[in-house]
Order: sequence, then C-alpha cells, then structure tokens
Amino acid sequence: MTERSEGKQAQDRLQEFREFRERMNRRIFEQKDLVINRFFALDGQAYKPGALDEKTKEVAGLSASLVLRCDDCIAYHIIRCKEIGLSDQQIWEVLGVGLIVGGSIVIPHLRRAVDLLDELNRPGTVVSVDPPGHDHGS
Amino acid sequence: MTERSEGKQAQDRLQEFREFRERMNRRIFEQKDLVINRFFALDGQAYKPGALDEKTKEVAGLSASLVLRCDDCIAYHIIRCKEIGLSDQQIWEVLGVGLIVGGSIVIPHLRRAVDLLDELNRPGTVVSVDPPGHDHGS
Amino acid sequence: MTERSEGKQAQDRLQEFREFRERMNRRIFEQKDLVINRFFALDGQAYKPGALDEKTKEVAGLSASLVLRCDDCIAYHIIRCKEIGLSDQQIWEVLGVGLIVGGSIVIPHLRRAVDLLDELNRPGTVVSVDPPGHDHGS
Amino acid sequence: MTERSEGKQAQDRLQEFREFRERMNRRIFEQKDLVINRFFALDGQAYKPGALDEKTKEVAGLSASLVLRCDDCIAYHIIRCKEIGLSDQQIWEVLGVGLIVGGSIVIPHLRRAVDLLDELNRPGTVVSVDPPGHDHGS
Amino acid sequence: MTERSEGKQAQDRLQEFREFRERMNRRIFEQKDLVINRFFALDGQAYKPGALDEKTKEVAGLSASLVLRCDDCIAYHIIRCKEIGLSDQQIWEVLGVGLIVGGSIVIPHLRRAVDLLDELNRPGTVVSVDPPGHDHGS
Amino acid sequence: MTERSEGKQAQDRLQEFREFRERMNRRIFEQKDLVINRFFALDGQAYKPGALDEKTKEVAGLSASLVLRCDDCIAYHIIRCKEIGLSDQQIWEVLGVGLIVGGSIVIPHLRRAVDLLDELNRPGTVVSVDPPGHDHGS
Repeated sequence: MTERSEGKQAQDRLQEFREFRERMNRRIFEQKDLVINRFFALDGQAYKPGALDEKTKEVAGLSASLVLRCDDCIAYHIIRCKEIGLSDQQIWEVLGVGLIVGGSIVIPHLRRAVDLLDELNRPGTVVSVDPPGHDHGS
Repeated sequence: MTERSEGKQAQDRLQEFREFRERMNRRIFEQKDLVINRFFALDGQAYKPGALDEKTKEVAGLSASLVLRCDDCIAYHIIRCKEIGLSDQQIWEVLGVGLIVGGSIVIPHLRRAVDLLDELNRPGTVVSVDPPGHDHGS
Repeated sequence: MTERSEGKQAQDRLQEFREFRERMNRRIFEQKDLVINRFFALDGQAYKPGALDEKTKEVAGLSASLVLRCDDCIAYHIIRCKEIGLSDQQIWEVLGVGLIVGGSIVIPHLRRAVDLLDELNRPGTVVSVDPPGHDHGS
Repeated sequence: MTERSEGKQAQDRLQEFREFRERMNRRIFEQKDLVINRFFALDGQAYKPGALDEKTKEVAGLSASLVLRCDDCIAYHIIRCKEIGLSDQQIWEVLGVGLIVGGSIVIPHLRRAVDLLDELNRPGTVVSVDPPGHDHGS
Repeated sequence: MTERSEGKQAQDRLQEFREFRERMNRRIFEQKDLVINRFFALDGQAYKPGALDEKTKEVAGLSASLVLRCDDCIAYHIIRCKEIGLSDQQIWEVLGVGLIVGGSIVIPHLRRAVDLLDELNRPGTVVSVDPPGHDHGS
Repeated sequence: MTERSEGKQAQDRLQEFREFRERMNRRIFEQKDLVINRFFALDGQAYKPGALDEKTKEVAGLSASLVLRCDDCIAYHIIRCKEIGLSDQQIWEVLGVGLIVGGSIVIPHLRRAVDLLDELNRPGTVVSVDPPGHDHGS
C-alpha cells in the first residue's frame, strides 16, 4: 500500500469515528433518559479545570483509557490532548506510562493510538473531536 | 470505635503495606530473574520527569490504578503524589476522574483511598512509600 | 449520509453478526471438544427460567456484558431481550445501570447498543439471534 | 474451627463492612466534591424502580458486580436483594449467570458471596446495608 | 518482625486459604445448583492431561490467573504447579510472562505469589491444595 | 456466501493484521522512546526458552490473551504456536482452559480464534507472524 492510501484510510477512520460518535450522542441525548443524560453531563464536568488544569485531567483520562484498552476512548482523549495543546512528546510519555501499567496487552491499542496521532499531524487534518459546524450532543 | 482507634488501624495498615512491599521487592530483586528485574527498573523509569513533569506522570499512574481497581497501586501513587507535593484538592480531582471513567465499581477503592489520604494527613504520619532508613528494593 | 443508508449499514452489520456467529458455533460444535461443547450447553442452561424468569436472567446477562464491554455479547442479549418481550424502556434502564456500574468507558459500547436497538425497531427487521430457517449451533 | 466461631467471624466481617462503608460514605459526602457527590446521587437513582422494578435492577447490579469481581459491591447487592425480598433460590440463579459469564475466576468471589448469604440467613442477623439508626452518607 | 514470625504469618494465611476454600466448596456442592455444580466439574476437567500434559495446563491456568489478578486463583495454581512437579525456576518464568502481559498492576499479586512460593518451600509445609484427610468439595 | 469467499475474507484479515502490525511496530521503534522500546525488547525476551521451553511459554501467552480478550494478541500467539509446532489439538485445549477461566464473555474471541486457526490450516497460507522478506520492527 502506498503511504498516500494509508493516509486516506486513517482519515476515513477518523471521519467515521467522529460522525458515529456525534450522531449517537445526539440520539442518546434525545432519548431523555435521566440517569444516562446526567452521567454524560457529569462526564464533561470531571475534565473541567479546577485544582488541576485541563491538560493534566486529559492525561488522567488518556492513561485510564489506555489501561482499560478502549480504542474509542483513547482516540477521544488523544484528539482532546492535541486540541488543548499537549505536545506529541508529552502524549508519547502518557502512552509509555499506560504501556507499563497495563502491559503488553496494551500494544495493539498503542499501535492504533500512534497511527491516529500521525494522522492528526498530517497537514490538512482538522484536530477536533466533533466535526466543525455541529453542536455537541452532550 | 473512637476516632483515635480508627487512626491506629489506618496507621497499622500503612505500616504493614510498606513493610511487606519493601520486604518482597528485596526478595524479588535478589532472585535475579532478568525479565522481572528489568521490568521493575523500567517501571521506575516511566515516571521520571521528561516532557511531562513528575506530578503529571503520578496523576497518570494514579488514574490508571483507580480504574484497574488495585488498592496497593492506588496507595503507592497517593503516597507518591503527597511526597512530591500534589495538594489534597488535586488528588481528589484525580479520584473524581477515575470514578467517572471506571464507574461505581471504583467506589470501594475510593473509600479506602480517602481513608489512606486522611491517615497521611494525620499529624506525625511519615509520608513516604518506603520506611525511613531503608534502601529501595527496586 | 442519508438516514436510509445508515439503516442499510446497521442492517448489514446485524446480518454479518448473525452469519458469523452461526457459522462459527456450528464449526466449534463439530470439533467435538468435550470441555468447550459442555460449556456451550451450560451457557444455554444458565438462562433457562427457574426461580427467576427468562426476562430477569437476560437482564443479568445484558448487564454483565455491558460492564465487561463485549459488543457481540451486548448485541446477543439485546436481541434476546427484544425476542422475549422486554420493552425498549426496560432495555434503556439496563443500559443505565451498566453505564453507572461500568463508567464512561462503557459509552462507546452504549452508542453501538443503541444503534442496534434502533435497527431492531426498523420496520421489516427480523428480531432473532439466529437467521430464520437455521438450526442453532449450540 | 467450630461452626459457631465461623458464624462469629462472618458476623464480624459483616459488621466491619457496614461500619467502614458508612463512615467513609459520610466522610466523602462531607468533602463536598461536586463530581463525586453527584455520581453518588446518580448511583442511587439508577436502581430506583421505573420500567423495571427494584428487584430486577438489583439483579442487574449483582450480576455486574460478580463479573467485575468486586467483593464489596457483591456484598452490597446481596444484602439489598435480601432486603427487598428476593428469595435465596433467586440469588443463587444470579450467582450462576455471573459464574457462567465471568468464568472460574469468579469462584473465589462466589465462595465469599455464599458465606455472606449464609450469615444473613443466621437467626438474629440484621439484614440491611446500613446499621440501624444511622443516616445514609449518600 | 523476625523471619520466624513472618513464616508463621504466611503459614496461617495458607491454612486459612485451604480451610475456607474447602469449607465453601463443600457448602456450594451441597446446594445442588445444577449450573454451578456442572461448572465446577467442567473446571476440573479442563486441566486433565490430553494433547497437553498437566504441567502445561497448569501453566495456562497460572498465567491466566496472574493477568486477571486473582490472588486465590494464583495461590491455587502455584500450589498445584508445586504438587505436580514444576520447578521453582519454571514457576518464576510463568510469573515473568504474566508480569509482561499484564503490566505493573500485576506487581502486588506477584509479591504475594512469591511470598506463598517461599512458604511452600519452607521445611515442614504440606504442599497440597486441600488439607490431608479431607475429600474435595468439587 | 460460498466457502471459497469466506477463505478469501479470512486471508485478507490475516494479511491486514500482519501489515498493520509490522508497519506500526517499525513506526514505534523509529520514535526511539526509551521506555516503550525497552518494553518491546523485554516482551520478546519473556518468551525465550529457559527453564520452560518456547511452546509452554506461548501457551502461557495465549491463555493470558484469551482471558484478557484481546483479538490481536490471541491472533499473534496462535500464529506463533503454529510456527513452533504446537498441534491443533493442543491449541484447542488452551482455548478450552481460556474459556473456563474467562467464561462466556470469551466466546466471541473463541469464534474468531477458531476462524483464524482454520485459515492458517488452508493450503497455501503462510504461517508466520510477519510477512516473508520483512524485518521485525521489534
């Protein structure tokens, strides 16, 4: 496969991740299930800056997602880390901590995380969790 | 139970945790198993300051330990967080992120984490992972 | 993407899930591995009505699948819940309990669960775990 | 060991579980951490009767706790199941589903769950999560 | 603490583990729950020699128990490994694989596993899962 | 679907797994992150023959991967098991142990494992983890 087509692939996956995420967040929001909607709100609140700044809280979220081996959660937190200004070197160090805590079982997720990070660094890629011009579902 | 005797209990648990941890680290180190000893060394290296400072790396370690629900690992990282100067408020915010990511199954570990934090804040408690006057086993 | 083509996508995924599940169940059954075949039989037995009715046992199975974050198991139990007559509202409440127990790491699986539930509710969708006219592999 | 002293032991463990749980719930509540306190409230809300009755929701909670192998959570939900009137036979069937979904790794937790259930059935044991005469911490 | 009293402690823990395990296996067996009793029987069957000998199957069981971080399961499989003749060096290598696959979160369980192994090697310790003169509950 | 086209599908998945694995291993290696590269080296070392032969260590790795439910890790260890000469019957027995320890939640991964094993046994399939003529990234 040429490097170009690999880039295309990763771009498609990123686009698909965002669209599905946003469509389903909206769908779940519209269900008006009290427990679930309140949990989504609380989930947003936990990462707001407080005694710890936003960057450190995203590091906590990314680290937890790595050791629990959830690709979508890892993708979300890596995009957020880039959005709020963590350097690639800083993100790699969180990947290192996650790998040591979680062991070799984390490696397949590490591969996909690095592939996403490279895609986010490709010129022209929009680095944001939700597509531009859309409201957040939660 | 009086509050005083509760303090005594938590102090005993903390003492026991440190002694067992240190004795077994030394025992494992002396076995000279190449893979295990190298992993222990690498484990130490992952938390050394780099692009991220030591505090942020300890936050990553504490967050991962919370969602993996390992009391000993949570205890280790909370003590390290206190040692290197994270405020209680900052530690509580990591507990909050861990609770949201990991769910109510984290609550029993949250209770024990808060109990330990209170013990570490009790006047006279030595805040260090290893007992004073001892070498680290790894 | 139009809503129609989304429906097509979810329908394809559902079809693929059933076909692969059934083909491999048959393949595994034909291997005649004693331990594995007995486990499959026992797995069926655990959900048979007893002191608890079938619906409550499927709720137990769905809740466990959610917190263990297994998409195929979640899909299986949601289809079964629909087959034996749980209402959508009841299924949403199980999703809520699973989300609270398992935390935000469950959210990507919740999104796929809700997408499947919507597909099962689309006019013309056959709500059964195995394709019509086929025997169960186990 | 005589059966009588075993009963004493289980009773002590049950008493200790309740006291620590209640003391720390109160301690956490008093910290007034917004994210954590809201999560505790939401945790209570998820089990309130709705389209599913309280018993079915407790079954969902017990099943999830079994496969996630959390002794304190299993203990909590077994006591709640008894409090709201599930029969022992019904609880055993949830244990069976949890064992099949989660595998032999659940067995040590199953042993402790059955030991607790026997203790709750011992004449004179108070079947409630919190000691009488105390307010809930959350 | 003197080395002697440490030995005493480990010996007590080993004794307690065996007694509780045996008492509860018998209790569960007597309940005559079909699903649970059949699962216990199947659990025994999976480790019987076949195309793989008993030692290799115990290695598989120990490795799985390590990465799932279940102390009782680790203890059971280490005692079985010793009973059927694996050398300490061989057991240490399984501990190494489990540590690498499962990561640093395995370390507290590794410490307790090594402590148990040392206790089993202490002159006079009976190396068997169940106390002598007792029938197995399953 | 004809059996032929199923074979084609499995072959494509196997090819894709190898190419992505190798490309990302090389990418990660070139990043020269000390902690991560050392961990990859240590991961290779843990499976080298010692007191246990290579086959037994691969059994330990496969068993751990099954209960942690990581498809890529299961695929890697099954290919390795075939490469170093474990018989299909031996691999099936490890699948059996993994299923019993990990429970029904392992079944979807068991299905994919058996599908891969069948593909590896198809005449003309190259049984190796990395594509021929390529260097290992780690």
